[in-house]
Amino acid sequence: MNLQPLGDRLIVEVLEEEETTVSGIVLPDTAKEKPQRGKVLAVGPGSRDEDGEYIKMDVEEGDEVIFSKYGGTEIKVGADEVLILRESDVLAKVVGDRAAV
Amino acid sequence: MNLQPLGDRLIVEVLEEEETTVSGIVLPDTAKEKPQRGKVLAVGPGSRDEDGEYIKMDVEEGDEVIFSKYGGTEIKVGADEVLILRESDVLAKVVGDRAAV
Amino acid sequence: MNLQPLGDRLIVEVLEEEETTVSGIVLPDTAKEKPQRGKVLAVGPGSRDEDGEYIKMDVEEGDEVIFSKYGGTEIKVGADEVLILRESDVLAKVVGDRAAV
Amino acid sequence: MNLQPLGDRLIVEVLEEEETTVSGIVLPDTAKEKPQRGKVLAVGPGSRDEDGEYIKMDVEEGDEVIFSKYGGTEIKVGADEVLILRESDVLAKVVGDRAAV
Amino acid sequence: MNLQPLGDRLIVEVLEEEETTVSGIVLPDTAKEKPQRGKVLAVGPGSRDEDGEYIKMDVEEGDEVIFSKYGGTEIKVGADEVLILRESDVLAKVVGDRAAV
Amino acid sequence: MNLQPLGDRLIVEVLEEEETTVSGIVLPDTAKEKPQRGKVLAVGPGSRDEDGEYIKMDVEEGDEVIFSKYGGTEIKVGADEVLILRESDVLAKVVGDRAAV
Amino acid sequence: MNLQPLGDRLIVEVLEEEETTVSGIVLPDTAKEKPQRGKVLAVGPGSRDEDGEYIKMDVEEGDEVIFSKYGGTEIKVGADEVLILRESDVLAKVVGDRAAV
Repeated sequence: MNLQPLGDRLIVEVLEEEETTVSGIVLPDTAKEKPQRGKVLAVGPGSRDEDGEYIKMDVEEGDEVIFSKYGGTEIKVGADEVLILRESDVLAKVVGDRAAV
Repeated sequence: MNLQPLGDRLIVEVLEEEETTVSGIVLPDTAKEKPQRGKVLAVGPGSRDEDGEYIKMDVEEGDEVIFSKYGGTEIKVGADEVLILRESDVLAKVVGDRAAV
Repeated sequence: MNLQPLGDRLIVEVLEEEETTVSGIVLPDTAKEKPQRGKVLAVGPGSRDEDGEYIKMDVEEGDEVIFSKYGGTEIKVGADEVLILRESDVLAKVVGDRAAV
Repeated sequence: MNLQPLGDRLIVEVLEEEETTVSGIVLPDTAKEKPQRGKVLAVGPGSRDEDGEYIKMDVEEGDEVIFSKYGGTEIKVGADEVLILRESDVLAKVVGDRAAV
Repeated sequence: MNLQPLGDRLIVEVLEEEETTVSGIVLPDTAKEKPQRGKVLAVGPGSRDEDGEYIKMDVEEGDEVIFSKYGGTEIKVGADEVLILRESDVLAKVVGDRAAV
Repeated sequence: MNLQPLGDRLIVEVLEEEETTVSGIVLPDTAKEKPQRGKVLAVGPGSRDEDGEYIKMDVEEGDEVIFSKYGGTEIKVGADEVLILRESDVLAKVVGDRAAV
Repeated sequence: MNLQPLGDRLIVEVLEEEETTVSGIVLPDTAKEKPQRGKVLAVGPGSRDEDGEYIKMDVEEGDEVIFSKYGGTEIKVGADEVLILRESDVLAKVVGDRAAV
């Protein structure tokens, strides 16, 4: 990908609802924060601490994440819809063996 | 569980009202902050202090907590309803011998 | 009590109005902040300073306090109504000899 | 007095308008911030700096102060009306010889 | 004067509009921030930095200042109207030779 | 260019929509944050950390950036429309080989 | 000029629209932030960092600046209209050779 996020932003590819049932995780439409799942395509260098040093991001390229839809910016790169988010919009990472839920 | 919360978030399994009477704790519907009880399934690494270091969480996996419903995000994992909360939404931990209330 | 407050929260048992007259302190209904009296049942470890260290609470278990009702969360433990408050909601402690007012 | 304010709060006894004319200070009803005069009965330990240390209060027990009415909480102790204020509500101290205005 | 301002407050005597024409400075009624001129009668010790130390005030007793009217509190001391302001309400000091404008 | 941005501001030349299709990046009209593409013409010295030192900017003159339109100020320099933005309005940089998307 | 701005304020003489065309810079009426051009007549000592030390201003007396009109206070000194602004209202400095745009 030739987009490099700035600050504590990351770029995610939104995963479709059908894929959600594989891990048993269901993200309800009625939830207040409208959670979504996605795969991290690129991460920024992180935000800055009070001395101006970068704070390392907790997510990495390739991570699968649950995020809150609010605040993200949609961009289409070719046929794919991607979202530019802040790390604070990421609620959780999907870790370990997906079949073992 | 294969969900790892980020930052100062935690994942709780919501406990039903009937269980509430065991410890004598009643969470009224009319309360302004709508308290709920739950069991902690997973905790994040904590938020960051001004140098970017993690601040250890005050709750651990397995704790029973009273939390404020606001701000949490509902997710279904298989048949169970779980909530992703911030630690600041947790009001208190249930400690010691539940029968001794 | 088997509830451990988190952060700078404390749990108070609300004292009835009749008891108020003993110390000569009257908490008017018309006051903007609706002050109330209570006895501290449990205190949290305190909030954190910018290095993530706990800041010791200024109230202790057993203290009698005047607090502002706003922001607290009501919970019933058996027959008793208790409130979970933040320390910043506590206006003053009742100290010394109550009969000597 | 057996009330100990918490944090940067203080307790003042409100002085009546008639007393105001002695020092020549008139506090108009029409002022936006509704200034009032009072005598300090008790002061808290102060607020905390970023290391959690107390910041010493600029007013002391016995000081006569001009304060802004907003934010204070009225309490009656016996026959006297007292107010619990934050130090930031105090605009100025009356100092030196009151007759020399 | 027997009023000592607290924190970063100062007390100013409001100067009348007629005096304004001497220095050629006109403060329009239509301006959004309603600037006014005054003479500084007393200054507080300053606000506090993050270690709780006083930050020295940039105005001194005797300075002539342009200030924004908002936020100040009017008090009458004898026949004179004075205002208690915060230093942040002071826009500029009148310096040097007033006849040389 | 003879405009030097102050603080963490930068000046961008807005790139037209037709150019967008070259890299396959499409910025939808319907997006909440209204992303736009531009070329960086000049950057400021950066914002300041808590000691007053400049924090180096993450974008440089010549970078191609995706930015959020909000908050920017439009200025025309001759025939060209330019925008003065804050670095925090920049979502991502376009990096590497544009043909390789 | 005999006005000394306080803090991070500066005093600018507003430049007329006709002058704007010389450098090719056009400031549209329709812009959200209403940019204006002016010449800096005086600058304050700067705002303070967290230790109370002054942070040097990025503009100097004599600079030509583009600024956002909001927040400034209009004052007339003799026949000239001047504005007292904060440095954060200054978007950019006009630098170098104005004929070379």
